[in-house]
Amino acid sequence: MTNQCGIFVGRFNPFHNGHLQATKQILAQGDELIVAIGSTQESHTFQNPFTAGERILMIHNSLIEANLPLSKIIITSVPDIHRYSIWVKHLKSYCPPFTYAITNNELTKRLFFEAGVTVKPIGPFNRSELNGTRIRKLMLEGNQWKELVPLAVTKIIESIDGISRIRSISDSKIKC
Amino acid sequence: MTNQCGIFVGRFNPFHNGHLQATKQILAQGDELIVAIGSTQESHTFQNPFTAGERILMIHNSLIEANLPLSKIIITSVPDIHRYSIWVKHLKSYCPPFTYAITNNELTKRLFFEAGVTVKPIGPFNRSELNGTRIRKLMLEGNQWKELVPLAVTKIIESIDGISRIRSISDSKIKC
Amino acid sequence: MTNQCGIFVGRFNPFHNGHLQATKQILAQGDELIVAIGSTQESHTFQNPFTAGERILMIHNSLIEANLPLSKIIITSVPDIHRYSIWVKHLKSYCPPFTYAITNNELTKRLFFEAGVTVKPIGPFNRSELNGTRIRKLMLEGNQWKELVPLAVTKIIESIDGISRIRSISDSKIKC
Amino acid sequence: MTNQCGIFVGRFNPFHNGHLQATKQILAQGDELIVAIGSTQESHTFQNPFTAGERILMIHNSLIEANLPLSKIIITSVPDIHRYSIWVKHLKSYCPPFTYAITNNELTKRLFFEAGVTVKPIGPFNRSELNGTRIRKLMLEGNQWKELVPLAVTKIIESIDGISRIRSISDSKIKC
Amino acid sequence: MTNQCGIFVGRFNPFHNGHLQATKQILAQGDELIVAIGSTQESHTFQNPFTAGERILMIHNSLIEANLPLSKIIITSVPDIHRYSIWVKHLKSYCPPFTYAITNNELTKRLFFEAGVTVKPIGPFNRSELNGTRIRKLMLEGNQWKELVPLAVTKIIESIDGISRIRSISDSKIKC
Amino acid sequence: MTNQCGIFVGRFNPFHNGHLQATKQILAQGDELIVAIGSTQESHTFQNPFTAGERILMIHNSLIEANLPLSKIIITSVPDIHRYSIWVKHLKSYCPPFTYAITNNELTKRLFFEAGVTVKPIGPFNRSELNGTRIRKLMLEGNQWKELVPLAVTKIIESIDGISRIRSISDSKIKC
Repeated sequence: MTNQCGIFVGRFNPFHNGHLQATKQILAQGDELIVAIGSTQESHTFQNPFTAGERILMIHNSLIEANLPLSKIIITSVPDIHRYSIWVKHLKSYCPPFTYAITNNELTKRLFFEAGVTVKPIGPFNRSELNGTRIRKLMLEGNQWKELVPLAVTKIIESIDGISRIRSISDSKIKC
Repeated sequence: MTNQCGIFVGRFNPFHNGHLQATKQILAQGDELIVAIGSTQESHTFQNPFTAGERILMIHNSLIEANLPLSKIIITSVPDIHRYSIWVKHLKSYCPPFTYAITNNELTKRLFFEAGVTVKPIGPFNRSELNGTRIRKLMLEGNQWKELVPLAVTKIIESIDGISRIRSISDSKIKC
Repeated sequence: MTNQCGIFVGRFNPFHNGHLQATKQILAQGDELIVAIGSTQESHTFQNPFTAGERILMIHNSLIEANLPLSKIIITSVPDIHRYSIWVKHLKSYCPPFTYAITNNELTKRLFFEAGVTVKPIGPFNRSELNGTRIRKLMLEGNQWKELVPLAVTKIIESIDGISRIRSISDSKIKC
Repeated sequence: MTNQCGIFVGRFNPFHNGHLQATKQILAQGDELIVAIGSTQESHTFQNPFTAGERILMIHNSLIEANLPLSKIIITSVPDIHRYSIWVKHLKSYCPPFTYAITNNELTKRLFFEAGVTVKPIGPFNRSELNGTRIRKLMLEGNQWKELVPLAVTKIIESIDGISRIRSISDSKIKC
Repeated sequence: MTNQCGIFVGRFNPFHNGHLQATKQILAQGDELIVAIGSTQESHTFQNPFTAGERILMIHNSLIEANLPLSKIIITSVPDIHRYSIWVKHLKSYCPPFTYAITNNELTKRLFFEAGVTVKPIGPFNRSELNGTRIRKLMLEGNQWKELVPLAVTKIIESIDGISRIRSISDSKIKC
Repeated sequence: MTNQCGIFVGRFNPFHNGHLQATKQILAQGDELIVAIGSTQESHTFQNPFTAGERILMIHNSLIEANLPLSKIIITSVPDIHRYSIWVKHLKSYCPPFTYAITNNELTKRLFFEAGVTVKPIGPFNRSELNGTRIRKLMLEGNQWKELVPLAVTKIIESIDGISRIRSISDSKIKC
């Protein structure tokens, strides 16, 4: 990759239309993009119901569906290290070089700031409507969620019976 | 082991009369049984006050006290892996082969289901009375708990001054 | 070290005047002291905003500022092991030998008791005023906190812009 | 368990006739016994070809086959902690209480000695013939090994096609 | 992804012409492909000199350079779990679904076989010439290696001064 | 600490006269010093026979014995992270800020170089005579080693019967 390259860090549970809009906006600026999936060691929890593999496929297939140039986008998976002080360096080791980070989260901003990385806000989309927690709650409660995610994501969630999974997770809690 | 073999997964903090009844019922069907103790790396918390060794001894001594055939039962200890997606496989690596699992927990059921393992419900006992959380609360508050567990369990808890331990745990919290 | 040596376990986020008073009292008795910093793998959380290195420096500089005899004090750093049953042994492996422990925490007392270590209470200081959680809240809310910690600690927190860090932490939460 | 209780620590890859003889000797003295399987997180290596579950079953079935009193023997599984200084304490947390340890290994002896645990040598059997490394080499090279292990062990190794597994392990090495 | 999808597991230190040929052959069959990079937590060793991020970029850029259809290929990163018995399940959690695996390694074959996954050999290329260990030795000793890897890989290794890195690694060894 | 501050990274098994000379030289330049002990999670191996606590005490007592100014020296303990790419950042989180590093090791130099940290060589002492591996071999073989370490170190090694420990370690190998 050359020129400007942003890194967009999220957990993408699931990848939704807001993520897709932000991705399009960055590419529209002529930049390249790393989509870095965090907490990839986790799945089957309400916070992270989907496996790393399922989330990678959601993103890959959504990019194809949206006809975006795959040569300009790299999807990476970054397991948690549970050490904020070294998290940016950990992230860097799992990703190709980037020139700026994209986030609206205050702590993430702080960590990038302490590490000397430029931060840009995520491009404008309706965050009260398009956010992972809300979408997972809609799934849980049997409400409409499909219009909030790319069709490719809907297909994957259906193929793994993801709604049933989310309901099992919420009914109980075990240690594993 | 041959024929049908069930796996009964729990944390057994402590092993109580409900666990014992379920064990008897499975053996009465002619099946063999693996009693798999989970979260064995943990102790001295309200959720898991007892060490793996203490829990193993509780079960071993209760089985002898109840005159159950030890040749048909294997007790195993399974530390947490903190990865639901691979937990069933992790469990399998720590246990002899089994043909079905026994649980009432929705998430555990889901994980076994996704891994293709048959699940059976735990045999009928009074779960509102016989459950670990309730028994630990009775211990904590100085109420009657001894009639809810095998005598062998009472003896072990007394020998380690377990009630004092549970009270220390609840009064405070440190990181370790 | 010879004679009596106490171990004072804390997280020291930050090292405050109460910690300093307790330290002085132990030295005044003629004992030597190990100041063992716990949870050193953690930072940038509300519970543990400062890195191990920052906390070590706070203590080192406060001891110098207070003119205490450095030859009688050893500062050690002890990462969490997340296993209460072996925590005292883990602590011992990271520290020189000690003859007693200083703590007011019930669970810590219990763990030292089960391991056969004598426990003494922390010397009298005003714990409702001088405690880490309260001090971090004052920092967060923009209230007066500087008179509660040694001047050396104030200088370090200012040099790392620690108040901004605590505010970023509280505004958001990411997984790392 | 009451009275004297020994702990016999090994990796039992596989459980062989020497292990069985040592077990019999301890029971013959009237003692109880904990058979503690170490390195249970590992399998499919030349050092530890068998899973924890496979090793537990080998021991359980061998004890039954030899008509030994299961009420006097507890089999436990102890994953590695990779910290020698706290290993004895770690072992204790995974096992019921014991009064002495059985080992011929110099380092294990040293760790028990530093932890104040009495050590006894393993009862006399032909260690140049009966040792795990030699038996695994015989398996690898297609030589006679079955007379060196209990019949129950032979059956389990055959049922999992264990000889093929050992050969695959030795031909190659991957990281996992 | 639909239809047949192979998974090609390697450490890709570096991605070389043999890997590229194998990739082309699988795509030529009409299959889709997951390129799964293993041991991604490791770098700066002779076995794994490059970080995950560097290896991802080598593969991504080589695929573009070779004009291969990115929509049919997913690059994933899989950290070691150090547990062979559950490694295939771990791999699956980090990757989209696949229908067969591609490897020549005996142990990997065995693990896939025990997990019920079909294995195909890597398409014919000159493995005595094109293998990672040999290429790293050539780099170390100052011999010709550039013709053995895609041009894109050469560029990345030069941009990170990778040859100097490999020489530093080989001259010494520290613990980290 | 102010002005120039070096960090001297080693495993200090044991702290020997070469380490002491290097320490003196740095202080003589007017700089402050962090003595960072690595691999502190390890002990009872031939590479790292001593616990973190034992090594800290060796250094603390040697500095006192040599009459060095304790206010200018901070001893820190840094467990391994097994990730070279982030090791410098990990080190920084466990230590107060430093302005340069002191090492002769090629890989350590490389890691500091990639992280942008200035490296200085360790001050001249006879490294073929004064090095940890050689000293441990002398201990093992019953040869003269005491003149190679500070008297304070000799006293600690004798008090823990360290020579016997090293011999037990070398005679055998277990997994823990």
